[in-house]
Amino acid sequence: MALINGHFLELEDSYLFSTVNKKVAAFGEAHPEKKIIRMGIGDVTLPLAPAVIDALHQAVDEMATKEGFHGYGPEQGYDFLRGAVRDYYKTHGVELEADEIFISDGAKSDIGNITDLFDGANTVMIPDPVYPVYVDTNIMDGRTILYLSATPENDFLPMPDGRHADLVYLCSPNNPTGAVYTREQLKAWVDYALENEAVLLFDAAYESFITDEKLPHSIYEVEGAKECAIEFCSLSKTAGFTGTRCGYTVVPKALYGKTAAGEKVQPNRLWLRRQTTKFNGVPYIIQRGAAAVFTPEGRAQCLNMIAYYRENAKLMADVLTRKGIYFTGGINSPYIWMECPGKMGSWEFFDFLLEKAAVVGTPGAGFGVNGEGFFRLTAFGNHENAEEAMARLEELL
Amino acid sequence: MALINGHFLELEDSYLFSTVNKKVAAFGEAHPEKKIIRMGIGDVTLPLAPAVIDALHQAVDEMATKEGFHGYGPEQGYDFLRGAVRDYYKTHGVELEADEIFISDGAKSDIGNITDLFDGANTVMIPDPVYPVYVDTNIMDGRTILYLSATPENDFLPMPDGRHADLVYLCSPNNPTGAVYTREQLKAWVDYALENEAVLLFDAAYESFITDEKLPHSIYEVEGAKECAIEFCSLSKTAGFTGTRCGYTVVPKALYGKTAAGEKVQPNRLWLRRQTTKFNGVPYIIQRGAAAVFTPEGRAQCLNMIAYYRENAKLMADVLTRKGIYFTGGINSPYIWMECPGKMGSWEFFDFLLEKAAVVGTPGAGFGVNGEGFFRLTAFGNHENAEEAMARLEELL
Repeated sequence: MALINGHFLELEDSYLFSTVNKKVAAFGEAHPEKKIIRMGIGDVTLPLAPAVIDALHQAVDEMATKEGFHGYGPEQGYDFLRGAVRDYYKTHGVELEADEIFISDGAKSDIGNITDLFDGANTVMIPDPVYPVYVDTNIMDGRTILYLSATPENDFLPMPDGRHADLVYLCSPNNPTGAVYTREQLKAWVDYALENEAVLLFDAAYESFITDEKLPHSIYEVEGAKECAIEFCSLSKTAGFTGTRCGYTVVPKALYGKTAAGEKVQPNRLWLRRQTTKFNGVPYIIQRGAAAVFTPEGRAQCLNMIAYYRENAKLMADVLTRKGIYFTGGINSPYIWMECPGKMGSWEFFDFLLEKAAVVGTPGAGFGVNGEGFFRLTAFGNHENAEEAMARLEELL
Repeated sequence: MALINGHFLELEDSYLFSTVNKKVAAFGEAHPEKKIIRMGIGDVTLPLAPAVIDALHQAVDEMATKEGFHGYGPEQGYDFLRGAVRDYYKTHGVELEADEIFISDGAKSDIGNITDLFDGANTVMIPDPVYPVYVDTNIMDGRTILYLSATPENDFLPMPDGRHADLVYLCSPNNPTGAVYTREQLKAWVDYALENEAVLLFDAAYESFITDEKLPHSIYEVEGAKECAIEFCSLSKTAGFTGTRCGYTVVPKALYGKTAAGEKVQPNRLWLRRQTTKFNGVPYIIQRGAAAVFTPEGRAQCLNMIAYYRENAKLMADVLTRKGIYFTGGINSPYIWMECPGKMGSWEFFDFLLEKAAVVGTPGAGFGVNGEGFFRLTAFGNHENAEEAMARLEELL
């Protein structure tokens, strides 16, 4: 019988969102008169920007004609989109070459698939709490994982602590904590990576929520990062593409790994080989829609959407500040990561909030050991609901 | 320094299509007056079907409204599409459950990623010549590969030969040979797999080109296949989706692999875990377009497209038959796999055909050792060009 990859059996089944859904459904049945407000999911709710819609329609029309039809495209993305991404990086002072940019169907796929490039013997360092994909994809490959404790003591921004790792995952603005690394903090990580000859896997999926001009949108704003970092980004939150699926991954040519024999190899070359072998590119139609995000018109429309969500976040942050509750995020991030009041556990507070206020959030314990005692609220809903939910919360606490 | 996956360096760089392109460009420069006809690429040329275009536009319009907007969808695909695929299988007498069907962004991704589920110690059996993805993805994982010789002696349809393997790749109708397994031949492979406790990885990407009612479209038309086979299919050739990207993979729940300790595990469960962890689903818009392929209207339109390509194939097959040249494919397949006349080598014939007739095909040697001395022509161009190319070929030979 074919031998399965036994590491899959080491994965813990995640019951986080299914348990949340079951509890909410049960509450809804028991209290049909109550209006439940959901602030738990990390999914956007505003429709796609008009510029994106126009570009999508236009691309569909092209596909209806012999002349405009597009068959197989380059696996790494069309030049028009790679060029647009390269120009976007320039606005943050980052100079990239187009062949360092790979168009993806979203950050999740590439963050998962990048592990193909690295030997199972590498030691991996991952913050806790964290987006579960980093941990699960490395368990699937059987790598040893070291956890970086993110706690209120370090404002949920863990720094190098002397331990060695070969691959280090960082996410800033962070999911779930909303915490954002400063340039100086990222510089320390770049120095660490260069010293340890490690590769930083930098998840910038929430970069467009950053308003503070001092905070870096990209790891490449830090000197030396091109020699040690791969960056993943996505239009999911930037432009509401969670169901439209497009992102990009930067693998600089100045970055090297080594073989067991000590030979230096460019991950850029390996990733190109991986993608041309196991991927056939993002749909032409979708790439046209994505390119519209980077036009002046599309950019303005998307920034309006982000501003809308950010107002929700501010509303939430203001209530927590008034109540003297510790939290991170909410300013340069769509996530608010709050301490559960009264020393409640994550699930205890979840039940409390659901029962007393009919408000749904996500128990922090679902994101790692250090998430216990914390709770994640998201800003992706509509204003009226966010206002009502926070009014209920303010009254309750 | 982070240790790279050294198996990547064992991959041979494929210069097949780049060498073809260089030679064609050089010829074009030297002979600007000649009309070059390309019959080498496996990419479709007809625009998307009107039913698909309508569905795409409609889905784009939905995404422009708050009510119709779709964010994250189920990673394994929307029920409306999984249901449509399930119903399509019924037309071939195959009963599947919707949760055995996984919507993909094309067969290439899933054929590549399925290797995640299996241990590196499995022995893999792969036909030669073959679509290079089977070989390359297993080299990346360091698996031992046994080759199955496909030759004129077995009509390019290799059968079990007594050697044991744990994973066996089969492609029918075949790329590049166009050869199609009969039901009896597939039964022999199913028996082999059940006896050897092997998993068949069955690539059915060209099934919609089958017209002979006796030939199976799906491995599941053979009894026992659900206990031993995973099937990959794609809308790339069925509906011209090479640049639109949608396909599906069937992982039956009756199929089991085992752990090193001998515990039985369902690959269905592992694939769901793999996809929910490393993939975020196909764009909603694209899934709506794909669903239109399975409506009566869409189906009829797509069959017309296939009939158009099939006429090209018939034209090509007729000329080769008249000339007494051995070939496979062309009847239930968009590919014609011909013996190079006059015992020429693959590249020799390529140069000869380009120089003398300005017709471009693909040298068979690019698909494996047994491809030497053979040549692939594809039927995806337009009628006029196919007619002209074959007239030139007929005159030349």
